[in-house]
Amino acid sequence: MSSPARLSQRLPRSFYARVQSDVRRHLGEEGLDAIVCEDWRDVAYLTGFFHTPTERPVLVVVTADRTIGLVPALEYEYAQQQDIAVDELVAYPEYPGVRTPQEVLADALSGASGRWGHAWTLSTGDLGLLRAAMGGVEWVGTHLVDRMRLVKYDEEVVLHREAARLGDVMLAAGRELVEERVADGGPLPSEAELAKHVIGRGTAWMYDTHDNVVVVPLLAGGLVYSGPNSAYPHGLVTEHRLQPGETFILSLGGAVGGRYAESERTFVLGEPSDQQRALFETDARAQHVGTEAIRPGATCADVNAGCLDVIRDAGYAEHIRHRQGHGIGLNFHEPPWLEDGDDTELAAGMVVSSEPGIYVLGHAGYRISDTVLVTPDGRERLTTYPRDLASSIIPA
Amino acid sequence: MSSPARLSQRLPRSFYARVQSDVRRHLGEEGLDAIVCEDWRDVAYLTGFFHTPTERPVLVVVTADRTIGLVPALEYEYAQQQDIAVDELVAYPEYPGVRTPQEVLADALSGASGRWGHAWTLSTGDLGLLRAAMGGVEWVGTHLVDRMRLVKYDEEVVLHREAARLGDVMLAAGRELVEERVADGGPLPSEAELAKHVIGRGTAWMYDTHDNVVVVPLLAGGLVYSGPNSAYPHGLVTEHRLQPGETFILSLGGAVGGRYAESERTFVLGEPSDQQRALFETDARAQHVGTEAIRPGATCADVNAGCLDVIRDAGYAEHIRHRQGHGIGLNFHEPPWLEDGDDTELAAGMVVSSEPGIYVLGHAGYRISDTVLVTPDGRERLTTYPRDLASSIIPA
Repeated sequence: MSSPARLSQRLPRSFYARVQSDVRRHLGEEGLDAIVCEDWRDVAYLTGFFHTPTERPVLVVVTADRTIGLVPALEYEYAQQQDIAVDELVAYPEYPGVRTPQEVLADALSGASGRWGHAWTLSTGDLGLLRAAMGGVEWVGTHLVDRMRLVKYDEEVVLHREAARLGDVMLAAGRELVEERVADGGPLPSEAELAKHVIGRGTAWMYDTHDNVVVVPLLAGGLVYSGPNSAYPHGLVTEHRLQPGETFILSLGGAVGGRYAESERTFVLGEPSDQQRALFETDARAQHVGTEAIRPGATCADVNAGCLDVIRDAGYAEHIRHRQGHGIGLNFHEPPWLEDGDDTELAAGMVVSSEPGIYVLGHAGYRISDTVLVTPDGRERLTTYPRDLASSIIPA
Repeated sequence: MSSPARLSQRLPRSFYARVQSDVRRHLGEEGLDAIVCEDWRDVAYLTGFFHTPTERPVLVVVTADRTIGLVPALEYEYAQQQDIAVDELVAYPEYPGVRTPQEVLADALSGASGRWGHAWTLSTGDLGLLRAAMGGVEWVGTHLVDRMRLVKYDEEVVLHREAARLGDVMLAAGRELVEERVADGGPLPSEAELAKHVIGRGTAWMYDTHDNVVVVPLLAGGLVYSGPNSAYPHGLVTEHRLQPGETFILSLGGAVGGRYAESERTFVLGEPSDQQRALFETDARAQHVGTEAIRPGATCADVNAGCLDVIRDAGYAEHIRHRQGHGIGLNFHEPPWLEDGDDTELAAGMVVSSEPGIYVLGHAGYRISDTVLVTPDGRERLTTYPRDLASSIIPA
């Protein structure tokens, strides 16, 4: 009996060798001798070591010829278990320590000098500690790793594609629960109940079909908003039960191998009113137009403007609460931003959300979101759950 | 019919007026004209507005005569709903924006100048954006708010005390589940099952007894480690089922009004072996000695050394994996640090964990943690669940 191939969520050491080699090439281009990263996502990107950030810093240094990891002694075995892709792994005893972690790192580097880059996410405090520990280094902020993270490696695209599948699996599970309850004639589920259900199903699906699950925040996450609560794009899930006639949003997603995707759909419970129909159709059109505009060479600002113009032209300008979308990677929200202020040109290998929304206070919100891969020829929607109105009506 | 008084987790506006007045006093002492805070916990501390940090920054500025909040338009109503304690609330349209959020803030401040402080947690990137937006300001890093947060206000102590009660409630629920399963003769619970049970009970207890629950990460959190897995102080909860004869640790806690507490106990399932007895008794003695040493005027380093000496003197030096403890406040781990490298003198109103541990690879870990308030005369353990060996044996 054959079983389907299981996806391993962990990328091989050869992948990280390639990433680090690319970092070195960029170091040369930027006239840098080394780079220090502290953000936990940068650390995972460079070395495959995923950790929960605490006060105990974890640092990765990439120099022209080696990669050094610094971890608290408490995390040493954990880093080894994850096969952290570094040439040397240094542990400091405890935090804050008689000597700072940065001083312990300086010892391991013995006589660091030259022009070193740091990510702009580095805190002013930790930059001060690095300066104090490595007097011979000139420090400069750089977007080197941020820029690399904009365009995904093929291995990362595989993970994003699978995360998008997770989002679709959760959407199907959510819809199924509502339909079951309607068929039973019992009380409809509450927002919280629906959220719990889809998160449970998403998590189970992942452990059933994947090996080496990489545990990150929002591994499988679900927000459910119904009726007037859906008019708040960043509201909290409540105990409100779905009501016949209401609009509701399933805003679902998760991460595979640390790479996120989101899949969001708006549903109407029962025959839609004229208002529901008009709002849904406008949002779906904006999402279609905005998504079709995603292609290499288009600027984020232009794509966003064309997308939101559909909503403005329909007379709903006052009901726009946010941009078209955002980049997705090791962070759920990251550059590039499909927004007026971002002139980044889209390029093949970028992954973005396309999720215009229309929010009518006192009534409901409408948002359809796909996770979209920029391809050499245009784009590919990685999330494929039906998004048209006819498919989004659940008879009540 | 009377019902017990319910605790409101939200502090009144008068509390934040006092905090901001104290900030102003310290500004004067430090020769600063204003301070800017961006860390979400600092924002909550100063204004009562709790939010989940994203790429869209939330900033609070306290000047000599007013307090200004900057939020993304998306969070504007949410901040108002929480009655954010600011004199002026400014919203920026979207992120990253045609103009940066920092530029929108600069407009509202019109002509900011002088010497301004920022927390050391501020990122180097966001400091750069502030510099660019407010050319007339000299920026200096300061621990002003960190130092204030070291010593809790009476209103905060009430919240910490209640969070400690939550920890004890969760410990009792965990023990109860194990005892029930032993009595039933059924399979013992797995780590994950126990964790889910205590988190569910803790969350339910909170909503049953409190009003205006402030939702923060780890609202009611539980880690459960049994047998060899308990030898990893930062391990992950697994599906391993408790076994008769094993040691297990319930590491529980949560936040009330955003203020944390932790309550951790080690249990032995069945009659303890000589090894279990020796390790437990040593850890309990270290925890007793270390906790009794907590008093105003003692330094964190000295308290930690005396505590861990008990373990070293018993011959278990190699099994120490971490310091005695850490400060607790709006952050689960924050200064002061009961560690060799922290010479901070303890003072009345500080809240710290006292949690020495002994970890024997292949066997088990032993850790007992109380949340401890420093009082004018010494200390008070806010967590009160029994911690002696006799009370920690569950007949198997």
